Amino acid sequence: MTINSEFLTIGKRPVRHDGVEKVTGRAIYGADMNLPGMLYAKVLRSPYAHARIKNIDFSDLKNHPDCIAVVTSEDMPIVQKYRESVIEINKYPEPRQSFSKFTEFDNVHLVHNILAVDKVMYRGHPIAAVAARNPHKAEELLDLIKVEYEVLTPVISIEESLKNDAPNLTDIEIKRNIINNSISPEKIVNWANVGGDVYNVLGDLGKGIAEADYIVERVFTTQTVHQGYIEPQNGTAEWLPDGNLKVWCSSQGHFGIRDQLAKALEISESSITVIPLEIGGGFGGKLKVYLEVIAALLAKKSGMPVKMTMSRSDVFEATGPASGSFVKIKMGARANGQITFAQAFFILESGAYFGAPVGGASNCIFVPYDISNISVEGYEVLVNKPPTSAYRAPGSPIVAFGVESVIDDLAELIGIESLDFRIQNVAKEGSRRSTGLINPKIGALETMKAVKTHPHYTSSLDYKISGRGVAFGFWSNGGGPASVVANVLPDGTVSLIEGSVDIGGTRTSISQQFAEVLQIPVESVKPRIADTDGIGYTSNTGGSGVTYKSGIAAIEAAYDVKKQMLERASIMWETTVDKITYGKGVFHLIESNKETSFSKLAEKLNSLGGPVVGRANLNPSTPGGSFAASLVDVEIDPDTGKVSIIRFTSFQDAGKAIHPSYVEGQMQGGSVQGIGWALNEYYHIDNQGIMKNNTLLDYRMPISLDLPMSDKEIIEVTNPGHLFGVRGVGEASIVPPMAAIANAIKKAIGTRLTNLPMDSKSVLNALRN
Amino acid sequence: MTINSEFLTIGKRPVRHDGVEKVTGRAIYGADMNLPGMLYAKVLRSPYAHARIKNIDFSDLKNHPDCIAVVTSEDMPIVQKYRESVIEINKYPEPRQSFSKFTEFDNVHLVHNILAVDKVMYRGHPIAAVAARNPHKAEELLDLIKVEYEVLTPVISIEESLKNDAPNLTDIEIKRNIINNSISPEKIVNWANVGGDVYNVLGDLGKGIAEADYIVERVFTTQTVHQGYIEPQNGTAEWLPDGNLKVWCSSQGHFGIRDQLAKALEISESSITVIPLEIGGGFGGKLKVYLEVIAALLAKKSGMPVKMTMSRSDVFEATGPASGSFVKIKMGARANGQITFAQAFFILESGAYFGAPVGGASNCIFVPYDISNISVEGYEVLVNKPPTSAYRAPGSPIVAFGVESVIDDLAELIGIESLDFRIQNVAKEGSRRSTGLINPKIGALETMKAVKTHPHYTSSLDYKISGRGVAFGFWSNGGGPASVVANVLPDGTVSLIEGSVDIGGTRTSISQQFAEVLQIPVESVKPRIADTDGIGYTSNTGGSGVTYKSGIAAIEAAYDVKKQMLERASIMWETTVDKITYGKGVFHLIESNKETSFSKLAEKLNSLGGPVVGRANLNPSTPGGSFAASLVDVEIDPDTGKVSIIRFTSFQDAGKAIHPSYVEGQMQGGSVQGIGWALNEYYHIDNQGIMKNNTLLDYRMPISLDLPMSDKEIIEVTNPGHLFGVRGVGEASIVPPMAAIANAIKKAIGTRLTNLPMDSKSVLNALRN
Repeated sequence: MTINSEFLTIGKRPVRHDGVEKVTGRAIYGADMNLPGMLYAKVLRSPYAHARIKNIDFSDLKNHPDCIAVVTSEDMPIVQKYRESVIEINKYPEPRQSFSKFTEFDNVHLVHNILAVDKVMYRGHPIAAVAARNPHKAEELLDLIKVEYEVLTPVISIEESLKNDAPNLTDIEIKRNIINNSISPEKIVNWANVGGDVYNVLGDLGKGIAEADYIVERVFTTQTVHQGYIEPQNGTAEWLPDGNLKVWCSSQGHFGIRDQLAKALEISESSITVIPLEIGGGFGGKLKVYLEVIAALLAKKSGMPVKMTMSRSDVFEATGPASGSFVKIKMGARANGQITFAQAFFILESGAYFGAPVGGASNCIFVPYDISNISVEGYEVLVNKPPTSAYRAPGSPIVAFGVESVIDDLAELIGIESLDFRIQNVAKEGSRRSTGLINPKIGALETMKAVKTHPHYTSSLDYKISGRGVAFGFWSNGGGPASVVANVLPDGTVSLIEGSVDIGGTRTSISQQFAEVLQIPVESVKPRIADTDGIGYTSNTGGSGVTYKSGIAAIEAAYDVKKQMLERASIMWETTVDKITYGKGVFHLIESNKETSFSKLAEKLNSLGGPVVGRANLNPSTPGGSFAASLVDVEIDPDTGKVSIIRFTSFQDAGKAIHPSYVEGQMQGGSVQGIGWALNEYYHIDNQGIMKNNTLLDYRMPISLDLPMSDKEIIEVTNPGHLFGVRGVGEASIVPPMAAIANAIKKAIGTRLTNLPMDSKSVLNALRN
Repeated sequence: MTINSEFLTIGKRPVRHDGVEKVTGRAIYGADMNLPGMLYAKVLRSPYAHARIKNIDFSDLKNHPDCIAVVTSEDMPIVQKYRESVIEINKYPEPRQSFSKFTEFDNVHLVHNILAVDKVMYRGHPIAAVAARNPHKAEELLDLIKVEYEVLTPVISIEESLKNDAPNLTDIEIKRNIINNSISPEKIVNWANVGGDVYNVLGDLGKGIAEADYIVERVFTTQTVHQGYIEPQNGTAEWLPDGNLKVWCSSQGHFGIRDQLAKALEISESSITVIPLEIGGGFGGKLKVYLEVIAALLAKKSGMPVKMTMSRSDVFEATGPASGSFVKIKMGARANGQITFAQAFFILESGAYFGAPVGGASNCIFVPYDISNISVEGYEVLVNKPPTSAYRAPGSPIVAFGVESVIDDLAELIGIESLDFRIQNVAKEGSRRSTGLINPKIGALETMKAVKTHPHYTSSLDYKISGRGVAFGFWSNGGGPASVVANVLPDGTVSLIEGSVDIGGTRTSISQQFAEVLQIPVESVKPRIADTDGIGYTSNTGGSGVTYKSGIAAIEAAYDVKKQMLERASIMWETTVDKITYGKGVFHLIESNKETSFSKLAEKLNSLGGPVVGRANLNPSTPGGSFAASLVDVEIDPDTGKVSIIRFTSFQDAGKAIHPSYVEGQMQGGSVQGIGWALNEYYHIDNQGIMKNNTLLDYRMPISLDLPMSDKEIIEVTNPGHLFGVRGVGEASIVPPMAAIANAIKKAIGTRLTNLPMDSKSVLNALRN
């Protein structure tokens, strides 16, 4: 089928299917759960960032009338097994698209993080949990638990963690085969806390360095930041009398949550049903189980359903923020502007357990450019902070901050306009990445050209101390397994059952694709997200993959429906399928005036062979990466160092933008998160590992008053791996803002800032030096 | 595929999947519904069986603090339209397997029955309903509604309804084309209240009569009886802010309920989601909407969810019992025992609106026998009683009571043993029914032979005044649209999503068929029943059709899963599908020692192309009829006339009994209902149309103390239209008990009783005469 460029609904902006329910407050989020006889539970969390648990005394809870159940990690039988295990890692496992396949290594840390085993590894680490009839009682009961700690020195920076005398931050013995062919000048001496080693080489770095007329080398650092989703983590669990477990929670993937529950509780996947509730933001932070397992343990002990929700401080201290980092970038170019080499050495903070996005960073670094000689070396190290999790394009913004800063400096050194320099070196279809992958059809050049021709780029900038910066970024986007089932209802509406939880309007973006194939109004599609038994396995809502993978499933299901409907029409008209055409929602019997609409035929299905159910279950693997650019004007207040964003334009290659409003929303949202990361946000952690700004008042995310309405331009270089050209749009826009702002600040004040956040103090310091 | 006679699970008796949930009281029935802010509503019902509503005064409810919403039929816009409509019926519509396709005629009565329009047609007819914060308040508020009636003479018998001066019991003008070729001596003079005319002729009745050496002609009557399901009707409705309606109820088919709601409320099917709750019995009585529409109207008015449940008296007075009847049977045979003709004329009570099972009765009558000359003429007439509904094998038990009584008398007259007489005339494959249908493969002879060789039949009967009776019966069983979706879970378990509500253990009987095809344990199937948007259209749980139709869907879905699993195995082994065999749950690569189990392969699906989802949506049409026999010993108390059932054996051709325990349960249940109908149960209605025994204390259903454990023998003459031979087993066993008991009583006391119930008074009268 060739899809007409005149789409019925693709590229249009219909009202989202869940809109009314959400604006009227009727949509059910995790905290809205309510079951008969439900208990509430709270978690006792570690006040120390690093300590050995010598004893937990529950004697004051024994026989306490308000205490219904208490659990610690001892209630997870799997813990005993892991105490004795030895893990062998030769190389960091492949970047994981979903948590469905755990390595043994992951399992250990999964479990240790849910409830501390012998040691607490970060401030806020769960130690025990108590269930009571109301949440306040549960909170009060926590005070009656007496924990005896042996306080250990916390390790809170990459530097400390790598020191020769640094404590080994994991109790698990790790056997390693270290790659010793590093050409990096940095030598890691103590490998005890290091994991996730990636080492990619393309071409001949020495040759590239030799060919360079100009070389820039800089070190960058970034701090721990949080995704800042508005809805705290939650989980409600209930055991059915037949021994099966039901869990309700807000997550980025209920199948992943189910699989983690199965691992932690050592029960089979089929004995667990996870019911997805609405999710108030995730950005990568809602892929892992936290409270779900604890609620299940307490529900088992008490025989009653148990609900748990986090406070904002719990969220900051004990979920998965993005890594702090150390990034060293070295790049060189000929005098004619051709980049001859690029080298990166970076270390990401793991937090308390391994899992930092070394893979994401190394897969995305340098991708916007066509460079012949590249070396990328990356690691993660343990520190006594909450274990990090994915955060929107995980890893890519951290390294892009360094790369795009160095490129600007290199262009300046050579004396080329930095955007022209980028365009000169842009990656194209057929050029090779540092991972060895050859670029498929990509939109890097188109994105850069869009910046160059945008009125913002060509406008003048007339503020006092001001600068304009530009930067680019890449995110690979993901695919993964997805399932869709489509039930044709008798009025011609279709109930579309999906497995992807909807964070950013994907009910509608998936429905649009389904509707387009069938040429029916998108309002005639009634999407719903089924639980883990109600639809085939569908991977997480992450990696910007939903509109792509569940979109392909919806397209295939629509073709399946169309095929069956044609068969039904052929029964009705007593002819063969090849004598019938279908277009614009109407079946037509060739060489006759017989016609019937999709909905008229839908009415008659039962008498024409039975109901029509479309179905697709697949695992597509051609998501197509996205390039994004940020173009920003900043003004600096010379008295305070405050950086004001005067104008911001976000550019992104969406492939085909199914619902442009949602694409723009993603671009604006990613940009704003990037601006926060650039200028204000960070975990203010003291030398004891205590986060001092663990509320939204003190952890300074940008609010609407801080920013102008950001402009946005969608570029559409379609992905040949998808019928409508979808690439995935949720992440790329967070990659370039930090570097773009750093480049703008440099233009304004002449100083290259290399550490995030570039807050007033840093800028004032730079102004004064 | 040829199915091995050594089945893995078919014919076994596994524990039902919903067993634990039900015995622990956790299964959710209609009365268990609870929604935040839910209101309760009660119905004001007519105290008169026939009256014109002159005025309804709600003034005392206006501004009453407890009254949240009130509705009458005026709140259904469709009512106005129907007031003005003229219905033309030429012939009664075909017997309806489901309510999904309403005739205009049905719609009118559907709506009139929900809330009375201008007239009340039976005692208990809903007039108005009130919603309040609790059910007691709602009940109290009903007293404040003042209705002014013009009381009309009720018509409470067939005889009265046919009288020349009988009032026209419908306001709807009906134009008719009467079939005037009736050969029946009964002449209907006043057609005003008559509907449902069926007239089937086979052969030449005159010739058959002429050939007969012996003729028996008798008139039989039966009374209104109720299905007696333990769970009263219920319905909870909630309107979502997007304008869609959710309804929870216990029904025999949520798709049918949805479609009726759509008709009554004049909204599209896709704007309604009906969520099926567990059902505490139905037997045909839970196919129609009652409270669901009223709850929806009140929920709309109040803006809050509304729950409604019936009392037992409501159930008796205002749901759908089985018709009372007048049945005239005339049959003749040669001296050699060959039946030469059979003639039936019968009239069923419709109750207040048309819908009596004239079709069911006429399709089943005489089917156990091969008779060349048959005439069957049947009608239904309106009376001021609740509108009748289906009741287990609807229509068939009523006519079988007459036919099987006459056959016994005819055999006695000829001097043949009545069972031998039946066997001599038995219907076989290829013989023709009165409907013109040629019998497919049937089990009539096998059922009769099973009786003849059963130890019960050959045992002696040594009680004082006792007799043994035998009778046969037929039910055609049904099919209809059905859908199944099967999600393979990573541990090799399969989530099986069905559309058929489970009344008699069909979760398990469907799962067994699915498991058998895949050769996996039935415990590895996790069945669930989805709501009307969660699965393709599936017709009602009725007509004994579920194990047949949803079974075929499950079988097809299992083949679909198998096909996909083979493809995945071929990907894993890098070969083609034809190189792989599958048996006993194991995939084997031909000419190698490579093997993998279903569950091991299930673990790897995501990396072999994605999840596996099986699917089937169909409308099979070869259900295969069932024959049943009752063999009963009765003892008569000469002082009281009490008939005691001493021994009872039920025989039934199940086709293949998928789960024999559930088949036996159906046989025992049908037999017990038949015994109740035979001996005790009836609506005691006074001359004003008031039911005097409207509680379970007074409406005397048999309890365990009344009966011996009934024996049962399953006959298996497989249905060639189903892979495993399923016929359908829920209904046939209620057909013969009344005649079998009448035949036994005749043996005991020498008198032919022809009116049901054959209670102590009738028997005592017979004994005394």
